[in-house]
Amino acid sequence: MNIKYIEHIGIAVKSIEVAKKYYEDVLGLYCYAIEEVKDQKVKTAFFKIGDTKIELLEPTDPESPVAKFIEKRGEGIHHIAFAVKDIESSIKELQAKGVQMIDQNPRMGAEGLHIAFIHPKSSLGVLTEICENKSE
Amino acid sequence: MNIKYIEHIGIAVKSIEVAKKYYEDVLGLYCYAIEEVKDQKVKTAFFKIGDTKIELLEPTDPESPVAKFIEKRGEGIHHIAFAVKDIESSIKELQAKGVQMIDQNPRMGAEGLHIAFIHPKSSLGVLTEICENKSE
Repeated sequence: MNIKYIEHIGIAVKSIEVAKKYYEDVLGLYCYAIEEVKDQKVKTAFFKIGDTKIELLEPTDPESPVAKFIEKRGEGIHHIAFAVKDIESSIKELQAKGVQMIDQNPRMGAEGLHIAFIHPKSSLGVLTEICENKSE
Repeated sequence: MNIKYIEHIGIAVKSIEVAKKYYEDVLGLYCYAIEEVKDQKVKTAFFKIGDTKIELLEPTDPESPVAKFIEKRGEGIHHIAFAVKDIESSIKELQAKGVQMIDQNPRMGAEGLHIAFIHPKSSLGVLTEICENKSE
């Protein structure tokens, strides 16, 4: 699999309004976009550092996987996402290596990316996303 | 504070020997260094993707903070580290903004970096390291 760069680090927060202040006023980053991803029942906020984004995730519904993560573990780092060259062939390659995928096929994520998650059981506890920007 | 890039993402693992196989054989990354950091009671393994490293952390002692993290939460993403221009002035700036630091002064981390941790209470549950490579 060809990992091009770390696309983003997903961080679960209770409130983007509160967290945005920390990332902007304390860390000095700039929030360039806020977007709702209805499919995943989250609101997202993006900050860019080089190739990599910090993606804040605020649940919009108590049934959101991010809401359940916060309920169980508190706010904190939720997942890491690697940009790959060809997501369809990357999924096939991972499956051929015995990796358990949450998504057998790519689905649409924030910012128009095609995304798929590896099950943390197959990635040593790290919820791992692979994603492809088809317009790159 | 001037964040230059994401220096690394620290991932707690029970065994570097096992985890190295996943990161190399499954994700296709290359482990370029293994180093023990006695001060933090961990063995570390490094993989590079662009500016950013994946830093695996295996506890070498049951009293290691990483051992306690694994005991409480299981293997997974442990911390994020931002490269800053001037770590001493960054610590002072954070403190002036009311941020609680774990380290009031920089200490030596892996790869000869000068490092300091922000307390997760001040960073919305994200254990956050700032670091400076004084030879850059």
